[in-house]
Amino acid sequence: MKRTHTCGELNISNIGQKVLLQGWVKKIRKMGAMTFIDLRDRYGITQIIASDKETSILNDIKTEFVVEVIGIVVERKSKNLELTTGEIEIQVENILVINKSELTPFQIEDKIDTLEDTRLSYRYLDLRRPEMTNNLLIRSKMNSIIRRYLEDQKFVEVETPILGKSTPEGARDFLVPSRTNKNKFYALPQSPQLFKQLLMISGIDRYFQIVRCFRDEDLRIDRQPEFTQLDMEMSFATNEDVMEIIENLIKKILKDLKNVDIIEPLIRLPYKEAIANYGVDKPDLRYDLLIKDLNEVFANTEIKMLKPLVKQNLSIRGVMIDEILTKKQILEIEETAKQNHLKSIGFAKFENDTWSGSIASQLNEKEKKELLTIFNIKDKGTLFVNGDKYKTISQAMGAIRINLAKIFNLANVTDFKLLWVVDFPLFEWSEDDNRFVAAHHPFTMPKQESLKDFDTNKEQALANSYDLVMNGFEIGGGSQRITNFDLQKRMFDAIELSKEEIVNNFDWFMNAYKYGAPYHSGLALGLDRIGMLLTGAYSIRDVIAFPKNSSGIDPMSNAPDFVNDSLLEQLNVKTIK
Amino acid sequence: MKRTHTCGELNISNIGQKVLLQGWVKKIRKMGAMTFIDLRDRYGITQIIASDKETSILNDIKTEFVVEVIGIVVERKSKNLELTTGEIEIQVENILVINKSELTPFQIEDKIDTLEDTRLSYRYLDLRRPEMTNNLLIRSKMNSIIRRYLEDQKFVEVETPILGKSTPEGARDFLVPSRTNKNKFYALPQSPQLFKQLLMISGIDRYFQIVRCFRDEDLRIDRQPEFTQLDMEMSFATNEDVMEIIENLIKKILKDLKNVDIIEPLIRLPYKEAIANYGVDKPDLRYDLLIKDLNEVFANTEIKMLKPLVKQNLSIRGVMIDEILTKKQILEIEETAKQNHLKSIGFAKFENDTWSGSIASQLNEKEKKELLTIFNIKDKGTLFVNGDKYKTISQAMGAIRINLAKIFNLANVTDFKLLWVVDFPLFEWSEDDNRFVAAHHPFTMPKQESLKDFDTNKEQALANSYDLVMNGFEIGGGSQRITNFDLQKRMFDAIELSKEEIVNNFDWFMNAYKYGAPYHSGLALGLDRIGMLLTGAYSIRDVIAFPKNSSGIDPMSNAPDFVNDSLLEQLNVKTIK
Repeated sequence: MKRTHTCGELNISNIGQKVLLQGWVKKIRKMGAMTFIDLRDRYGITQIIASDKETSILNDIKTEFVVEVIGIVVERKSKNLELTTGEIEIQVENILVINKSELTPFQIEDKIDTLEDTRLSYRYLDLRRPEMTNNLLIRSKMNSIIRRYLEDQKFVEVETPILGKSTPEGARDFLVPSRTNKNKFYALPQSPQLFKQLLMISGIDRYFQIVRCFRDEDLRIDRQPEFTQLDMEMSFATNEDVMEIIENLIKKILKDLKNVDIIEPLIRLPYKEAIANYGVDKPDLRYDLLIKDLNEVFANTEIKMLKPLVKQNLSIRGVMIDEILTKKQILEIEETAKQNHLKSIGFAKFENDTWSGSIASQLNEKEKKELLTIFNIKDKGTLFVNGDKYKTISQAMGAIRINLAKIFNLANVTDFKLLWVVDFPLFEWSEDDNRFVAAHHPFTMPKQESLKDFDTNKEQALANSYDLVMNGFEIGGGSQRITNFDLQKRMFDAIELSKEEIVNNFDWFMNAYKYGAPYHSGLALGLDRIGMLLTGAYSIRDVIAFPKNSSGIDPMSNAPDFVNDSLLEQLNVKTIK
Repeated sequence: MKRTHTCGELNISNIGQKVLLQGWVKKIRKMGAMTFIDLRDRYGITQIIASDKETSILNDIKTEFVVEVIGIVVERKSKNLELTTGEIEIQVENILVINKSELTPFQIEDKIDTLEDTRLSYRYLDLRRPEMTNNLLIRSKMNSIIRRYLEDQKFVEVETPILGKSTPEGARDFLVPSRTNKNKFYALPQSPQLFKQLLMISGIDRYFQIVRCFRDEDLRIDRQPEFTQLDMEMSFATNEDVMEIIENLIKKILKDLKNVDIIEPLIRLPYKEAIANYGVDKPDLRYDLLIKDLNEVFANTEIKMLKPLVKQNLSIRGVMIDEILTKKQILEIEETAKQNHLKSIGFAKFENDTWSGSIASQLNEKEKKELLTIFNIKDKGTLFVNGDKYKTISQAMGAIRINLAKIFNLANVTDFKLLWVVDFPLFEWSEDDNRFVAAHHPFTMPKQESLKDFDTNKEQALANSYDLVMNGFEIGGGSQRITNFDLQKRMFDAIELSKEEIVNNFDWFMNAYKYGAPYHSGLALGLDRIGMLLTGAYSIRDVIAFPKNSSGIDPMSNAPDFVNDSLLEQLNVKTIK
């Protein structure tokens, strides 16, 4: 390499050395007869100092030019101790322009308020901004930590196909028309689930892969049409074995990248408790703010909005924060309630021993006293309460809880709270399909106690599965797998797959169970989400080098795009005009 | 984990220990009152010995059952020193069946002659065969060596999109209809070429990725619709810098996986010399057998097939091996000649000071003497000769050379001969398009001496590119890239892209050059091919866990397949009936 050093490595010990640096001009400014350049590369910034007499080229140089500097490392008079190179500067002997730059459409620096689509259109400039560069570096390190850790534990990396088969059950597939097999389509994988199970049957007893997965779903802040997961599976292993490996892995990632020590084993929270206390199956444990059952408190209430609900035996639930909300904040919570299928929300504020708010005047003394006890409120607080079906009210209260935490900044961004959520339901009711579908996927083993009657007692059946949750995000999920032909058949029957659907889509897979399948368990970690949480990024888009925007478009290359009709003809497809 | 050891790790030092093993029954046989089981997992085979009285379960156990064995490690009487576990066996205390197996459609052992499509239909069984398991393990290790080596050299792994934009120039793209952007299509990447160049412009000065790439081409023995490459790129780097890194990497792979030491720097063979001596741009240097120009020898020849060719100033070229070919072998070479656009091939055998064969009687004494000298033939040999345009005859002779080496086993499979081929032409003539196209790709920098006139003197223009060749396979290729807007424009003009094609497909990319691009060079290695060469596999399919067959079909899952019309409707496409 022509450069002798990067822009991030010279320090006081290099003084007197002749060096050659290459990088981007972050800043150039004249002070009298001297010109100062901040030279930037991904490793850091080094100050360059040149006198006019040395070169006239300096007059042409602008920010974001790529330049090469030869010079001597000297001690800096006014040191900048925030920079690792802040004690030295380079006295220029020669400087030349490698490539010019026009004025960039936005500043190459952190905390810009440029529209995201503009940033995406010039992603190569956006990624020059130190916080974005850092996001990519952190991801690269995370991948490296994961692979080295698993390799050291004898996991084998196996690459599985991207061009696969479309199967029902699950999200919508992206399809790829086959040119050589007319009228047939490949599907991009939603995950390598079946392939990794086949690898277990092959005897590759510890498999992993950092792999791209695809779902043609409507996009959200933490969703992309393609995303990356750590996919892994272990034979002769139970959930316990997988959880131990993954728990140690995530602790190592946090230690190595964030210097966060998590010593204690992660708690295991049953799904039911998660819903009861937090209203969601991925609770953020950086703050308490528990949701409470209030049916007892309001058993004999005179509150107009609650009284009929109590009579209908609906679930009365609430959450109370030891803060007083402003009118605007209350409106915000009401909006959250509505978005979560509540018609309204009752609220009451307590301050200076006085109650106010929509339901305050209807509260009796017993209720007031019990509320303060249940929610452990001392001086002041704001209560939100309503009733509905247990699931509906819990979900709404869960959303309100998260919103309250956001308003009052209860979650420390440098905190990392991890837990396992276990004992998930095996099935969930699908309104769209008017049947029970697999809550995780149909290869998940029922829990021991549900084995006998999971297909007749679907509502109560529990899954032998586990989710890993960090700071309110599900960052991973796994399960013990079914490895028995008859059990798999019962599962497909339970979710009402037709014989034809089974034959067309899963027979080839179920047949593998007939040739000696070991028991196995495995999991997938969502690396985009973990990357987002590790870097404190606003969205997963900020930890993906070239993401799609919320319309599934890359505004830079303009993908997807129209293609030549002749190309489609070769594929034997046409678009419907 | 319940198992205390794998089936490949117990030895004499474990004698007396109580162990729990889990694995597949490779073999079960009765000898008197004793039953012997060879228990297999991916780590090895351990002999299990049980007496009838201990358990009646033994009668049910068949090959490929998954079983769990608890027992004591004892010394073996008749040791098998070919196995690492061959000095011990396990005296069973308890044995249980984890899962049964039907009779497998083929034996789980190496060197079976089952049809490949049958093996692919039961890939999970095929991968149990030790040679296939080993192929996957070698690949995993190769990936690990590559990543650790590059990470240690400060390369950053960045993931680039799989859902990209279709662009002209290059092979046919696989397309993915977009549901949300009606009538538009994503394309699967043929390589992340543009993205990695953008990463250089972003300042990620050392990028790598082990990445899936896609080409919708007709399949061949060493082609798959999806394949894996190591993709890398370096900023502030020349070809020399990249070649040094990659040369050290491939040497490390060979050392670590094959214990092959390559000390000397790889030779660099100019493209012209490769064609002159070997007839191909990816010569197998494990054997000599050079092709020779014979125009001087035959300048005044009376040989009927050559005389008119000499008059037309065509190129007379030949190859002579110091072996005598049988009639059948000669027919085989004639077939090779025909497949390579020769109408016929002249041959002459020399043995016991006598010449025979199709042109032997027409050879004069001067020609005979010179041929023996040129090809350095002592006792015996067979000559093949013909004339045509230089390119055509060279290519045919190259194929004949390879075929001769195959017939006489000249290439040692445990040998690894590497070289760089350099000084490639910048363009090649496309008969299909009736224009010059980029030989590598249109982002390749012309060589310094071609910079001035590459667009007017296309036939002579040389590329600043380099291929890595191992044992007759191109295993990698790279180049210095264009990083200048005007030069890129000249290149696109040279390959006669229309203004519209440039605007629609490359403007967004060329614009990036305007904002400070560092000079950069990079390369891609074909990991399927390298894996095939390292394992001595017959085809790249044998080093891919779940490949497609030569019709692009996975006979196991039956991908690609028909899909539901309603699915296509959502994508706004229909198939042409």
